Amino acid sequence: MFRIRKIAIDTYPENTAFLLRSGNGYGVEQFKALRKIEVTADRSAILATLAITDDPGIVGQGEIGLGEQAFRRLGQPEGSLVSIAQAKPPVSLEAVRRKIGGDVLSDSEISAIISDIATYRYSPMEIGAFLVACAGFMTTQETLSLTKAMADVGNRLHWHSPLVVDKHCIGGIPGNRTSMIIVPIVAAHGLIMPKTSSRAITSPSGTADTMEVLANVDLSVERLRSIVASENAVLAWGGRVNLSPADDVLISVERPLRIDTFEQMVASILSKKIAAGSTHLVIDIPVGPTAKVRSQSEAVRLRKLFEYVAGKIGLMIDVVITDGSQPIGRGIGPVLEARDVMAVLRNDADAPGDLRERALMLAGRVLDFDPAVEGGRGYARALDLLASGKALAAMERLIEAQGRQAIVFNAGPFKHEVLASADGAVAAIDCHLMARIARLAGAPMDKGAGIDLLRKVGEQVRRGEPLYRIHAQSETGLGFARELAAGDPGYRIAP
Amino acid sequence: MFRIRKIAIDTYPENTAFLLRSGNGYGVEQFKALRKIEVTADRSAILATLAITDDPGIVGQGEIGLGEQAFRRLGQPEGSLVSIAQAKPPVSLEAVRRKIGGDVLSDSEISAIISDIATYRYSPMEIGAFLVACAGFMTTQETLSLTKAMADVGNRLHWHSPLVVDKHCIGGIPGNRTSMIIVPIVAAHGLIMPKTSSRAITSPSGTADTMEVLANVDLSVERLRSIVASENAVLAWGGRVNLSPADDVLISVERPLRIDTFEQMVASILSKKIAAGSTHLVIDIPVGPTAKVRSQSEAVRLRKLFEYVAGKIGLMIDVVITDGSQPIGRGIGPVLEARDVMAVLRNDADAPGDLRERALMLAGRVLDFDPAVEGGRGYARALDLLASGKALAAMERLIEAQGRQAIVFNAGPFKHEVLASADGAVAAIDCHLMARIARLAGAPMDKGAGIDLLRKVGEQVRRGEPLYRIHAQSETGLGFARELAAGDPGYRIAP
Repeated sequence: MFRIRKIAIDTYPENTAFLLRSGNGYGVEQFKALRKIEVTADRSAILATLAITDDPGIVGQGEIGLGEQAFRRLGQPEGSLVSIAQAKPPVSLEAVRRKIGGDVLSDSEISAIISDIATYRYSPMEIGAFLVACAGFMTTQETLSLTKAMADVGNRLHWHSPLVVDKHCIGGIPGNRTSMIIVPIVAAHGLIMPKTSSRAITSPSGTADTMEVLANVDLSVERLRSIVASENAVLAWGGRVNLSPADDVLISVERPLRIDTFEQMVASILSKKIAAGSTHLVIDIPVGPTAKVRSQSEAVRLRKLFEYVAGKIGLMIDVVITDGSQPIGRGIGPVLEARDVMAVLRNDADAPGDLRERALMLAGRVLDFDPAVEGGRGYARALDLLASGKALAAMERLIEAQGRQAIVFNAGPFKHEVLASADGAVAAIDCHLMARIARLAGAPMDKGAGIDLLRKVGEQVRRGEPLYRIHAQSETGLGFARELAAGDPGYRIAP
Repeated sequence: MFRIRKIAIDTYPENTAFLLRSGNGYGVEQFKALRKIEVTADRSAILATLAITDDPGIVGQGEIGLGEQAFRRLGQPEGSLVSIAQAKPPVSLEAVRRKIGGDVLSDSEISAIISDIATYRYSPMEIGAFLVACAGFMTTQETLSLTKAMADVGNRLHWHSPLVVDKHCIGGIPGNRTSMIIVPIVAAHGLIMPKTSSRAITSPSGTADTMEVLANVDLSVERLRSIVASENAVLAWGGRVNLSPADDVLISVERPLRIDTFEQMVASILSKKIAAGSTHLVIDIPVGPTAKVRSQSEAVRLRKLFEYVAGKIGLMIDVVITDGSQPIGRGIGPVLEARDVMAVLRNDADAPGDLRERALMLAGRVLDFDPAVEGGRGYARALDLLASGKALAAMERLIEAQGRQAIVFNAGPFKHEVLASADGAVAAIDCHLMARIARLAGAPMDKGAGIDLLRKVGEQVRRGEPLYRIHAQSETGLGFARELAAGDPGYRIAP
């Protein structure tokens, strides 16, 4: 038995336990074999990676040190007694091994894997193995099992309404911030749309990052409920609500490995929507040469997968395949995108037309879910709510309800304009590259960093005229972004 | 710039760096993004996983703590200045991503991956992804590239002789300790056989574990050379010699994930043999229902893969497919196996006949590599060297040269006999289960732990007669092993 000592070391996302090398009844070889241990208290147990120390100042004889995650997750006071043992690998790992070997897994096997992942019983290596094995091949049935399993392990919101709508874009198109226009339109119409969004993972901004320029997005479940009760809607950060703890863990491995298969995407998106209590969902799949989905036939395959899984889990969906050939709007990065969104909501004359059109079209599809909106008149209704200023008013109420942002963020003061190298028409803009440049400039961490597009596809430019402006909050950020843009500006000009 | 402080925390096999949470110019979000950092000193740089501490007693302002691995690998004195940056993922990871997506990798891509792995630039998660992607499918050409790349990154031994022989069994058969008989026979004949062996990874004993019962096996390259110079041979632990650092890292991930494909096996074995300076190699592939290779056709596929890769890298090999239907010899576990080996070398009347026969056959194949041994007379020569006591004398000299073991190890004093549940003939013995029972009893850590087989396939038993005896060094070990054997004794008795 060892006494717990809290060690002020943060090894996020992993649990770490610390033991003194000598005098604990274990030899060097055994420690190597131990690697991962199970720490068992009276009523709780955790798995932790073992770190060995030679410094009795860190942990003493008869003590076990627990890092911050491990201490919190075990939930026992310092000084209480625990026993340790070599961690038995989770039983579900046997199924992962069979998946590596090419087997198809059952509903209950996938459910056991996801439950172990959500409770931190898998190491990143084991999660990576599961994801890569699934990336190799995964049946439609397995994707369905994965979706259900992921929805089952987190919190689940209930809205006590037969019609709870949502809209989700699979991403990949910079500046595509339609949710912040659709949500106020739908809220003004009177449907319930509790939108939880992610922060950017690999993109220059997520809806949560951009909304945060205007309002607080870090809301508890209780505040979420009360805002939706008064405003029909919310635009919150989903991470706070713990809707899909398994997905959060999976993403922490998918991101560095850049695993982004259709099956993982469908399971991740739909499980979160189910957990968020949605009943009707519009999915936006942008297709373009530099988007996530590169061809119409791929888009159709993805659409079918969404439709199959959604159908089986009782979610009504409407999948829209859209033009993803270039960024939407002008701004890329939180501040610049928020500027575009508000311009559209205010019906400003110079508001980006493509962002406005895209948002209206998708809002119309969402409104079409309402049985009271007859014969596909959703678009007309959306246009009415936007043009009349009712959507803007709904957005202002939402900002007040969530808490208006106290800080005024501005576009980054360090600027650089990238110029056209020839006369001609803009033939293509590389979405992927624009996203990378904006990230190097500092987005989304630096709210004001990003790109302001001054020309879009089809427009004429003359050699030496600016194509876009990079904004950064620091000289360093601007330097990184400039350097990448100097190598490849991401614009193709056709004579 | 940060000053290095050594932190007495061992996070084998990973590098860990410690930073104070506040006052380092980084915010919480940035730390999360940092996760893995590159620590750069004047002339060296390492990648390390970042741990954040809130305790200025562990690292102070302006300091960076380096765990034991990280400190040693960076190789800079305490107090020297280093800079840190978010670690750029190794460029070769792009190739791993393509492999996950189903691509075939080139020679130079695999070589870059292996070089990054050997220099600890990959996280376990990334290694797992590479291994699982390779387990999905791997071409013969990729296996060859992998073999060459792995041989290239470690030490390489040179023996200045055109004929340096070796013998390798792919494993999976408990008690199959033929190397300790073959090496003295071949040494007595006069061929050079510098045998480096692994310790047990998942089995109850490796050749290094069993040899260690008799002699020191932890030999430096210099001692290895001088022993081979005087004795023609050596029986050493390969881990000390750093022949294949990439393989050591790969195994640390393969083991928990239990990835054991033919391609990995061939690359791992042949790269080590090349690095060890072997020119001629006999490979033993035991086939049986509970062995690693379960059918003749699988064995042939594996043989062809060995032959193809060996041919391309200029290694002469002779692949022997053997009977792997039951354990070889009587003892399983270091002490009990060493007893069997010495009984064979001493020509004891009760020495296990199957171990003797298997060793003679394989030693004969090794001797057949010698052009002076004409017309396949290797077996006769091997028998002569064994029967005459010359092999025993060679073994005794080898033991003296390596350093006779100071401790006398005995079979574990805690014993339990597993009895036949019916009259009949032993029809099958489960190799896999015997290995697990022996490991639970404590092998290979506890040298005296293991199993003594009292009946082999084909022998008659009566109900209640002992089939095998479990030895352990502790009551606990015996208990674990008994429990498993009680559920399934691993013997099938046919009436």
